[in-house]
Amino acid sequence: MRSLSLTRRAATGFGLAALAAPAIAAGPTVPRWGVHEITLKAAVPGNPFDVALTATFTDGRTTLKVRGFHDGEGIWRLRFSPPREGVWRWRTTSPVRALNGQAGTVSATAPRLGDHGPLHVAGGYHLAHADGTPFRQVGTTAYAWAQQSDALCDQTLATLRASPFNKVRMCVFPNVAAEPIFPFEKAGEGWDYDRLNPAYFRRLEDRARRLGDLGIQADLILFHPYDGKTGWHAMTPARDDRYVRYMVARFAAFSNVWWSLANEWDLVKAKSVADFERLGQLVRAEDPYGRLCSIHNWRELYDNGRPWISHASIQNGAAVMDDTRAELLRSVWKKPVIYDEVRYEGDIDKRWGDLTPQGMVERFWHGLVAGTYVGHGEIYKGDDGWTAKGGRLHGESTPRLAFLKSVMDAGPTPGFEPIDKWWDQHLGGQLGSYYLRYFGETAPTEWTLALPKEELKGGERFKVDVLDSWSMTITPVDGEFVMARKDAYFMHDPNRPAVALPGRPWMAVRVTRV
Amino acid sequence: MRSLSLTRRAATGFGLAALAAPAIAAGPTVPRWGVHEITLKAAVPGNPFDVALTATFTDGRTTLKVRGFHDGEGIWRLRFSPPREGVWRWRTTSPVRALNGQAGTVSATAPRLGDHGPLHVAGGYHLAHADGTPFRQVGTTAYAWAQQSDALCDQTLATLRASPFNKVRMCVFPNVAAEPIFPFEKAGEGWDYDRLNPAYFRRLEDRARRLGDLGIQADLILFHPYDGKTGWHAMTPARDDRYVRYMVARFAAFSNVWWSLANEWDLVKAKSVADFERLGQLVRAEDPYGRLCSIHNWRELYDNGRPWISHASIQNGAAVMDDTRAELLRSVWKKPVIYDEVRYEGDIDKRWGDLTPQGMVERFWHGLVAGTYVGHGEIYKGDDGWTAKGGRLHGESTPRLAFLKSVMDAGPTPGFEPIDKWWDQHLGGQLGSYYLRYFGETAPTEWTLALPKEELKGGERFKVDVLDSWSMTITPVDGEFVMARKDAYFMHDPNRPAVALPGRPWMAVRVTRV
Repeated sequence: MRSLSLTRRAATGFGLAALAAPAIAAGPTVPRWGVHEITLKAAVPGNPFDVALTATFTDGRTTLKVRGFHDGEGIWRLRFSPPREGVWRWRTTSPVRALNGQAGTVSATAPRLGDHGPLHVAGGYHLAHADGTPFRQVGTTAYAWAQQSDALCDQTLATLRASPFNKVRMCVFPNVAAEPIFPFEKAGEGWDYDRLNPAYFRRLEDRARRLGDLGIQADLILFHPYDGKTGWHAMTPARDDRYVRYMVARFAAFSNVWWSLANEWDLVKAKSVADFERLGQLVRAEDPYGRLCSIHNWRELYDNGRPWISHASIQNGAAVMDDTRAELLRSVWKKPVIYDEVRYEGDIDKRWGDLTPQGMVERFWHGLVAGTYVGHGEIYKGDDGWTAKGGRLHGESTPRLAFLKSVMDAGPTPGFEPIDKWWDQHLGGQLGSYYLRYFGETAPTEWTLALPKEELKGGERFKVDVLDSWSMTITPVDGEFVMARKDAYFMHDPNRPAVALPGRPWMAVRVTRV
Repeated sequence: MRSLSLTRRAATGFGLAALAAPAIAAGPTVPRWGVHEITLKAAVPGNPFDVALTATFTDGRTTLKVRGFHDGEGIWRLRFSPPREGVWRWRTTSPVRALNGQAGTVSATAPRLGDHGPLHVAGGYHLAHADGTPFRQVGTTAYAWAQQSDALCDQTLATLRASPFNKVRMCVFPNVAAEPIFPFEKAGEGWDYDRLNPAYFRRLEDRARRLGDLGIQADLILFHPYDGKTGWHAMTPARDDRYVRYMVARFAAFSNVWWSLANEWDLVKAKSVADFERLGQLVRAEDPYGRLCSIHNWRELYDNGRPWISHASIQNGAAVMDDTRAELLRSVWKKPVIYDEVRYEGDIDKRWGDLTPQGMVERFWHGLVAGTYVGHGEIYKGDDGWTAKGGRLHGESTPRLAFLKSVMDAGPTPGFEPIDKWWDQHLGGQLGSYYLRYFGETAPTEWTLALPKEELKGGERFKVDVLDSWSMTITPVDGEFVMARKDAYFMHDPNRPAVALPGRPWMAVRVTRV
């Protein structure tokens, strides 16, 4: 585990140095993809969270419109993350005189070492950093980790540092008990939903930034049904919009931020599809960087074909028990599919939290062969549960997911494609060069090595590895397999038509072009 | 087989008597859902297929706009199928004086005995006739049967009469060798694509009408990539539109007609998604009755969420190898899903035509448990193949599909729902009253009878039947199963926790509330 983590971590480039760059001073610099922050002060009557403040940033080729946000005590901030190196000029607009017409420049320098930039959809079904580096999503879920004590947050970050996980699904509003600091200003027994609490968001953004320093994506869940009597999931549209604008203004410049409109959207009974459509379009309109954006379901799949959705975020533990099942949603939406919730490894008496570690690992492998991605969760009795509050991981799946990640990293770019889909082949990889077959809980003693003829003419040489996804071993098969026509659909090596397997479950075969 | 067919056939009500109803005469009548035809004559210069002629029909509550069509030799026809009983007044509009301002009435009487009316989507995922009778789709495919010799067509109809099939997918333009009569007027070595051949469509509509007399739906495929050098799949948009308008004007009044925009739309390289969108919307705009409308894929799924699509028509033989796989597309589109092509039973050396009869039957059962529907096809060496030209059926799946149909008919209304989907239950039916579990090629010796707790309080009594889907037997299990709480998710009979099974493949268990 740790040896893997040493090589894979890369900061995403918005360390404190960048944040501290002086605003409106001559010659400030910021690394490309880092965060340049401009601070303005004003005394305004009325609700400071309703003050309009935007700035345009331009390098002459691209103009980005950035919204400023109120950070308490008469302070407004504008955060800018330059998508390109070079000089960017900016100018503010606001009905408040002290905030209007402010201007300056910032020079975007080379990115910080190891920063590959924010993510975008690559090859239709995958994710890659701005510099083209593939991003192989191995997600986990720790809903309210960021709202726990500083000590527990530190422990969570230490756990993540030593883990294979490169994305965390996490709530803005906690879904379980958390530190007594709240997203809205207290008003009597409740909250003034018209006034956000900057200190709350400052704390959350510290967590998101520290994830970024570890090269980990923060998938921020904006709404969910589990904040109980707080009413945060059931505000008026105007208050929802204010909150969403604030989140985007405050967080969008962090290049590791993703937007998750909702967790289990169809259980947020106070909101209709029309509400989520409005909010999704609002995020798209407000976010100048086009960060990844999704919405997670309970029993009703959202129409993930909607233009504001970058990738499908799916709860369905059964879909990834079979790559051919998992693949179907990819074929529907023609977007990346992330099975963000597939039950959690654990031992609680709920069926969503009693998955065996083998079952968890199995789902990741089926998802991989399908050309999709999977999310982990863990909830064992005896502590509060990783997926609730973070802390420590106890499960046996985590090291196996690190092994899986190493197989992904050595695989095709930008990701795995299902091969000869809809013909029950259960092959993923890249036609002509790389084939992965995963056997799940079956325990075959051999596998007939027959590759679909596409991209093969005969004479191609392949090496074969037998992978044990549970024992985390890779056993090369001696010699090579030389392709020749088998029949109208397949190629194989007539001298070696099959690969011997050990008759254990959780095996895979990898076939790689020499 | 035949004994089943005797009870299930019902004419859809547009026999010759209705078609022969005199136009513009005083007091004509037509059965509800039948076809009233009005004949007009005119001599026009130019292309008669470009003459605009419409009529509005109204009963004072509903107004339908019907397009007339040219039937050759100076004859135009308007066809109207009354959706309600009562007096309908009509009036024509045309720039041609002889066709303009014609008017009359027609009285819609009670429907013909056994006519349940045209189909609509029922319960979100199923089909039902206008009078509420469920329609349990058991489809077959005979692409170019209607373009074969009269003798072969007669044989095909006789075969269908004795079969369980209640829907036939069939081409307007043949995809294999056919009688030398063509949809367009001959012009030298090719065709004048601006002039349709009424005799061709008259022959096709005779076939569609005779299907209707057998109570069989005609799923008319408007375009496909397999008409070779005819160019019929690659006409200009204006010609496509003229042809589609003509088809709708001519066929829409037949209540057993469905529209299939294309077979393997993604192989019709001459047409883009934008073309199919235009054509789909054109069908919807032209068809006053809103007949079922779909588009069938090869490797790329169409966006079946589009409003002009009534149900998803899917080619994917692997999806229905597992009910949980098949169900996913239902959850995506929230519409009926028909797996119209799942490979064909046969013995040819193409993998799309070498499915075993067991494999064909298996797909129908998995599809049923998933709350979806499946289509049959058959192509054995030695004749031209049912799925190409019709004729006789040789396969072993057909009688088993009649058995399946009898199970469907005795099942929940309007159709089967997946139960506790996404939890790998493999149960379909109706919560609280009916549960069907199908085991496919596995050969279990018992099944743990545990029903999801929804709609059960304890004390409910169920009877159980063991079904052999291949041997076509139903074996009742003695006594009853009385429900009690099993755990947080399931109910069962603690005295009878399992059902014994014979250890053969192709078995199912049916659990029905007493």
